[in-house]
Amino acid sequence: MCPPHFPHHLPYLSLSLPCPPLTPPCPRVPPGHPRFFNQLFSGLDHHALAGRFLTETLNTTPYTYEVAPVLLLMEEQVLAKLRELVGWSSGDGIFAPGGSMSNMLAMNVARFQRFPESRSRGNWDLPRLGLFASQESHYSILKGAALLGIGTDNVHLVRTDERGKMIPEELEKEIQRVKAEGSEPLFVCATSGTTVLGSFDPLDAIADVCARHGLWLHVDAAWGGSALLSPQLRHLLAGIHRYVPPPVPLRRCSPSQIPGLLQRCHGMGATYLFQRDKFYDVSLDTGDKSPQCGRRADGLKLWILWKAVGTRGLARRVERAYLLEQVKRREGFQLVMEPEFLNLCFWFIPPSLRGQHSSPEFWDKLGKVAPAIKEKMMRRGSMMVGYQPHGSRVNFFRQIITNPAVTRRDLDFFLDEIQELGRDL
Amino acid sequence: MCPPHFPHHLPYLSLSLPCPPLTPPCPRVPPGHPRFFNQLFSGLDHHALAGRFLTETLNTTPYTYEVAPVLLLMEEQVLAKLRELVGWSSGDGIFAPGGSMSNMLAMNVARFQRFPESRSRGNWDLPRLGLFASQESHYSILKGAALLGIGTDNVHLVRTDERGKMIPEELEKEIQRVKAEGSEPLFVCATSGTTVLGSFDPLDAIADVCARHGLWLHVDAAWGGSALLSPQLRHLLAGIHRYVPPPVPLRRCSPSQIPGLLQRCHGMGATYLFQRDKFYDVSLDTGDKSPQCGRRADGLKLWILWKAVGTRGLARRVERAYLLEQVKRREGFQLVMEPEFLNLCFWFIPPSLRGQHSSPEFWDKLGKVAPAIKEKMMRRGSMMVGYQPHGSRVNFFRQIITNPAVTRRDLDFFLDEIQELGRDL
Repeated sequence: MCPPHFPHHLPYLSLSLPCPPLTPPCPRVPPGHPRFFNQLFSGLDHHALAGRFLTETLNTTPYTYEVAPVLLLMEEQVLAKLRELVGWSSGDGIFAPGGSMSNMLAMNVARFQRFPESRSRGNWDLPRLGLFASQESHYSILKGAALLGIGTDNVHLVRTDERGKMIPEELEKEIQRVKAEGSEPLFVCATSGTTVLGSFDPLDAIADVCARHGLWLHVDAAWGGSALLSPQLRHLLAGIHRYVPPPVPLRRCSPSQIPGLLQRCHGMGATYLFQRDKFYDVSLDTGDKSPQCGRRADGLKLWILWKAVGTRGLARRVERAYLLEQVKRREGFQLVMEPEFLNLCFWFIPPSLRGQHSSPEFWDKLGKVAPAIKEKMMRRGSMMVGYQPHGSRVNFFRQIITNPAVTRRDLDFFLDEIQELGRDL
Repeated sequence: MCPPHFPHHLPYLSLSLPCPPLTPPCPRVPPGHPRFFNQLFSGLDHHALAGRFLTETLNTTPYTYEVAPVLLLMEEQVLAKLRELVGWSSGDGIFAPGGSMSNMLAMNVARFQRFPESRSRGNWDLPRLGLFASQESHYSILKGAALLGIGTDNVHLVRTDERGKMIPEELEKEIQRVKAEGSEPLFVCATSGTTVLGSFDPLDAIADVCARHGLWLHVDAAWGGSALLSPQLRHLLAGIHRYVPPPVPLRRCSPSQIPGLLQRCHGMGATYLFQRDKFYDVSLDTGDKSPQCGRRADGLKLWILWKAVGTRGLARRVERAYLLEQVKRREGFQLVMEPEFLNLCFWFIPPSLRGQHSSPEFWDKLGKVAPAIKEKMMRRGSMMVGYQPHGSRVNFFRQIITNPAVTRRDLDFFLDEIQELGRDL
């Protein structure tokens, strides 16, 4: 957003707000730029943007039919399409402001389904609950446990294999251990598309464990759910239709058998908003299913995007190969692992460190390479890419392409630039 | 949003999406229309809309400086301005998606401040907590208590006076009662601008009670906070600077003495986002103060609006008189109470019911008038206004003007239309 230098052919927005007089230089490559690979988001889809402009201009909130009729119907239609993608012909849903909040709502609904009295009486009369998620799960599981009064200590992080996938046998062991300690297992969060490695937990095997113990299975597919759109990648989420096998007393029922759960869990029926004496069918007033009151009508942008691009068009955005081939071909680039999805994780090994793989100080030095290259690229303002350490692995780059405007030229530039910036380290 | 008939001079957006084949007619007066008085929001400010377009186009999320430098600095600046309005020279803050979520965060921070171990261990080791809010408080207090594992039964709704203001002596009694029952009072939510009546709780007197018992005082000023902008109306929030007198062990300290509370309460320090080895000052990465991960950069629209319109310009929007005079002057209109703020609550008494005030069936019949007029206006598509019952009061209209585009002509039309639609009831 600062005065940028953009030797680039693609249009995007440049704000000419002056940088305030601060020490850190303003990054020059904003998320809309085709050389921004820094996060799980980037770029701009024109159809979705049109939807967002409409949403902002309409300036309403989809809680009641009378103030957002078409938006509410669109939301319902998009939710039905999403359920269809999962493999359900019925069910329920609501849009939430982001994946973190969605994970929290899932935990809350699971608690309410098992212990309906918790809504009125809190956690005090409940046994100590146990939540399970993999070591690679998103940090919002911990945030949610803290917010919900369950506590981060009661989130049991299940070991993953070398690819970052939850090990179902380890889940089984954790559940046994937690039971033995006197807590009551409630909820398993499987992750489809982990944040760093882009790993997919084995849903079918995890669902088996959940069914055995009567646990609520939640799938955090905020990142990897789009793989469902692709016939090539869909298999990564095999078993996701077993998403909600609720525990006692409704063992093994399908989502269609728990109608109204969101409404019963979150609804408060405020008489100034959800009046029952309206002249139309008040089941169209779906807003009380959410813990929010006012909400943005986020269904619209997805409705427009999906209509405009189509399922096949969306699928093409998650199928990719070019950069992977290049990373394998070029000297100095080393994959952390063969990717399954959009997360391409790799180290750049500067010439000075090549051929020293077994040396103990090699990893120590390598861990400083990514931050050093990142600093150089931010000061130069040429591009953006994220890095992080991971378990015993030292800092590596995580490259993500989600921007439909990215071209092969940008990807060649991406690798060239890392080579150049890291040459003398 | 349906094909509308707009005999109106003002521009606004009309979407030509066809209405789906549904029973209820699509409302023809959307929230952007100057004859929409249905909710606590309406209309569109062009400056704010420009900000929202920018936010959507920049398509970033203000969690780290590297991906949203200027937006983060703007957020900090707007938060500082808001604190200044309250009367604080220091403090902390974060934007949340709506007032409901903000109330929930306040409860969570209050719990964490008193019982830091609750974050990791949940509510089980805590005494049963007591939350207090008035009978007129927003329903998100109940939603929040349910979500946080505290439970709606542990929200104690304090009696209000005939104007809808919390009675401090009743708060004192409730606190005593809850203590006597063995629960531990924690948190008082005072409301500045209640949803229906627009009432302001007496903050100074409530703060005295909180100080005496060492309770966290939270002010829900989502609706009435804008009164702080107006020299005429500011007195309604007298005492709001006593907002956070945290309890033991930090009795009577100011917000500046609890630095980092949001961060300590919500932060998880995800290593893939909040890396500590960045080359810039990572205190600029404020996103971990929120329970969300990705968030919309909602500070921008307020920044632009405030810069463009100024404090005085914003204040003018919450000072009003014209409609009130008219309602008092016209036959058949009866105020529920003299308004203090933007909520104008009144009954329309059709000719057939006039002069029957004492009759027992009068109120029964009057309660059916507002829904009947509402149905007629929605079918005709002429305007929108909200109604609700309230305690022992039968359905009445609540008129709100927040749309800067509303003219006297619209307000005359508003009253004429009610008279016409209600003439034969």
